[in-house]
Amino acid sequence: MSCQCNHTKESETERPEDALITSTDPSHPANLICELCRLFYSNGWVTGTGGGISIRSSNLIYIAPSGVQKERMIPENMFVMDLETKEYKRTPKVYKPSACTPLFLSAYTMRNAGACIHTHSQAAVMVSLLYEKEFKIANIEQIKALPKVTEPGYLGFFDTLTIPIIENTAHEEDLTDALQQAIKEYPGTTAVLVRRHGIYVWGETVWKAKVYNEAIDYLLELAVEMKSFGIPPHIDIGQESKYVDPKIYN
Amino acid sequence: MSCQCNHTKESETERPEDALITSTDPSHPANLICELCRLFYSNGWVTGTGGGISIRSSNLIYIAPSGVQKERMIPENMFVMDLETKEYKRTPKVYKPSACTPLFLSAYTMRNAGACIHTHSQAAVMVSLLYEKEFKIANIEQIKALPKVTEPGYLGFFDTLTIPIIENTAHEEDLTDALQQAIKEYPGTTAVLVRRHGIYVWGETVWKAKVYNEAIDYLLELAVEMKSFGIPPHIDIGQESKYVDPKIYN
Amino acid sequence: MSCQCNHTKESETERPEDALITSTDPSHPANLICELCRLFYSNGWVTGTGGGISIRSSNLIYIAPSGVQKERMIPENMFVMDLETKEYKRTPKVYKPSACTPLFLSAYTMRNAGACIHTHSQAAVMVSLLYEKEFKIANIEQIKALPKVTEPGYLGFFDTLTIPIIENTAHEEDLTDALQQAIKEYPGTTAVLVRRHGIYVWGETVWKAKVYNEAIDYLLELAVEMKSFGIPPHIDIGQESKYVDPKIYN
Amino acid sequence: MSCQCNHTKESETERPEDALITSTDPSHPANLICELCRLFYSNGWVTGTGGGISIRSSNLIYIAPSGVQKERMIPENMFVMDLETKEYKRTPKVYKPSACTPLFLSAYTMRNAGACIHTHSQAAVMVSLLYEKEFKIANIEQIKALPKVTEPGYLGFFDTLTIPIIENTAHEEDLTDALQQAIKEYPGTTAVLVRRHGIYVWGETVWKAKVYNEAIDYLLELAVEMKSFGIPPHIDIGQESKYVDPKIYN
Repeated sequence: MSCQCNHTKESETERPEDALITSTDPSHPANLICELCRLFYSNGWVTGTGGGISIRSSNLIYIAPSGVQKERMIPENMFVMDLETKEYKRTPKVYKPSACTPLFLSAYTMRNAGACIHTHSQAAVMVSLLYEKEFKIANIEQIKALPKVTEPGYLGFFDTLTIPIIENTAHEEDLTDALQQAIKEYPGTTAVLVRRHGIYVWGETVWKAKVYNEAIDYLLELAVEMKSFGIPPHIDIGQESKYVDPKIYN
Repeated sequence: MSCQCNHTKESETERPEDALITSTDPSHPANLICELCRLFYSNGWVTGTGGGISIRSSNLIYIAPSGVQKERMIPENMFVMDLETKEYKRTPKVYKPSACTPLFLSAYTMRNAGACIHTHSQAAVMVSLLYEKEFKIANIEQIKALPKVTEPGYLGFFDTLTIPIIENTAHEEDLTDALQQAIKEYPGTTAVLVRRHGIYVWGETVWKAKVYNEAIDYLLELAVEMKSFGIPPHIDIGQESKYVDPKIYN
Repeated sequence: MSCQCNHTKESETERPEDALITSTDPSHPANLICELCRLFYSNGWVTGTGGGISIRSSNLIYIAPSGVQKERMIPENMFVMDLETKEYKRTPKVYKPSACTPLFLSAYTMRNAGACIHTHSQAAVMVSLLYEKEFKIANIEQIKALPKVTEPGYLGFFDTLTIPIIENTAHEEDLTDALQQAIKEYPGTTAVLVRRHGIYVWGETVWKAKVYNEAIDYLLELAVEMKSFGIPPHIDIGQESKYVDPKIYN
Repeated sequence: MSCQCNHTKESETERPEDALITSTDPSHPANLICELCRLFYSNGWVTGTGGGISIRSSNLIYIAPSGVQKERMIPENMFVMDLETKEYKRTPKVYKPSACTPLFLSAYTMRNAGACIHTHSQAAVMVSLLYEKEFKIANIEQIKALPKVTEPGYLGFFDTLTIPIIENTAHEEDLTDALQQAIKEYPGTTAVLVRRHGIYVWGETVWKAKVYNEAIDYLLELAVEMKSFGIPPHIDIGQESKYVDPKIYN
């Protein structure tokens, strides 16, 4: 059985295409994917090989491979695809492409994203069990970290953040149709929740995608906590006392 | 779209005012802001670019810029303002001033603070949903880490810690009036909660502000946990059994 | 009283068998056990000397000793046993063999495992208090990280993950019969829960065992959270609204 | 106002007694106190200057000073006291002795402890609100990490761990009488809970004290979680289903 430590010894001979994933610049996509995956792992978002991330650099997209320990990835593990031709410009020697690839591509082609993050965040899974069709939260400052998308600028404090929830499928690639449908039906969303699975979040750049993902996860976690106290997360300000057990309010 | 990694390459030519943010001393405000923001990030207090911090060094105040990833800040990102003239002595080349600036200034001018911390702590948001006008907790040892403010010394174990809650506004700078009003009405407070937003905490020095913020966040978190068991956080000692479900008490 | 820092000064004279635990390769079992235990400690899985891990390298098995602080282990602390003869090829000078040894051996001999992990995960203990004979969870994406065992490949999203729960005994080694019985009765399991104690998880390689353990712990934690909202973790998709308090659903 | 970063510049002239706190050995008490406090801080046990630790080295006891940030301590901050004469052999230049000192001394003189740890663990505070006179938990594997105290050896799985709870006082040093009383009345305890305050845990060596504290905190946290599901932590094995809501049991 082959080693799963991700550090599989590649053949001594470096191939020309390996230049695509070789850089001493920490902000090179191949390096950054590894750094961000370590961060996501420490947040519990990509535990047990779950989740993934892809970064676009002009016409090239970098994608972490399938089924690897995300916190142990090295640049040599990376796939590089030409966004136009959909051909792999570089493949690692021992891994399979990520089943998330068509989903990442949807964010690139339909939204011109610069990066797309997929996590198995437990808050995302819990929210998908506590809401039917859409996650909604309103009147929370952290919402202001999220973009309007359909026009420049960010949501306001009094806005409602709405994220569609699609049904999970047996195979990750089969989510593509539903994800694309949600992207069309929710032109203002920068994320799609997948029921009993996790979330996809994208942004104009890798840093924006990271910030959006952090802000959304904060809001998902907060919504679960609010619900545990009986407070629906999208009520009007000042209505809290109608929902909280009076024995503990105030 | 400009990079958001905070490490934007500043022009090669260093400006004279850059001396204000250049030091090998880790306790220099420009360095310390970066170190503390990394710590706050690991606590979940400044996730998704939320929150901020400002430190005063005699008549100069150092402020983290708006909308940056707090855990990735570098000294070059810092604004430096003259506290008397309110003029910027140094501005970074690509960032906007923090919308928290007038709020930090309120702590400096009304309370002669040495530093002011702003977080989006989830415990602070939860508490703002579970209390109407003021957060109150009493008879907990950790309260003793907090200052009396109106006279030298610290609160006692039997004292009640009271922190006012102000309503959030669409724009952070518009919080200024309500924050100043709360500072006047609560002469003994070293913090103000902002409903559905977070908290502002200040102190005589940056280390005191940090300690006060930690102690308050501990108490906010504890209060939420107490409420989840039906125990109001400001009851008298020995009354717990009247509130806890008898099936699990003792 | 002897030191418990694990770094007991071994005699100056190195013994020939110490070659078995001496390597500069971080993936050598003696080094890897130490690295993984530090990771498990940071997850709260081996707090207070609890838990353990064993790795097999062809016919040799490496085992952490009894009662040591798992996050402070060094390769010199390791036992090495011949899997066929059950004789120790190398023993540390001051420690006792782990009481988990016969349990680890069961995974090696009955399942040809490459490694076995034992944790005192609080999620595992909670699950053992909330389920009678078996832990069951279904229709969660993370299940797909777990193997079918009885045939090649992994569980699917619509599959139910079932993990048997055995009763704890006064002495860890006395768990062996019940563990072996569970391994026989549940040919598809890669883990056994021990009531009010923790969990044993094994895999074909150390990395697979690690990934399985992470994925299972994620599912145990999620199941406890689901139950706190009234949702049984093995219901059909779409039945959630029948279980969640309607005041907070949607 | 004096700096609180703990790194106050001591006078250039080293005093002879500074030899007591100067060592390159990481297991020297003055170094170890600093290392362990950083660990405790990351666990949330000594947030906001709360908590403390003392280590005994034959007849000398090392004590962290009062009111400092525990994660930023350096050996120069340490007090060293002669256990017999109770005279300070070394005092830092700018700090006050810890108010915990008489409590630590009680563990040294009444129990011949090698170290004593004091934390403000939130689990300890919660337990003190959910139990009247004593914390009790039974039939959990982690209990086996705790000593019998009155005779050699450790508690068994079927044993009940009992930790007395004393009432808090306005001043920490005034806890001494109640703590000593509890130590006398509970000859088998290695810890005392202080209501609405935290816990004191001691052991024969610093490593044993650390392990006991970890194991106890694990059990306190577990007990709170058990109670949140309606399960009293000291019921007999197999009685869980009588307490858990049948809608979520099994």
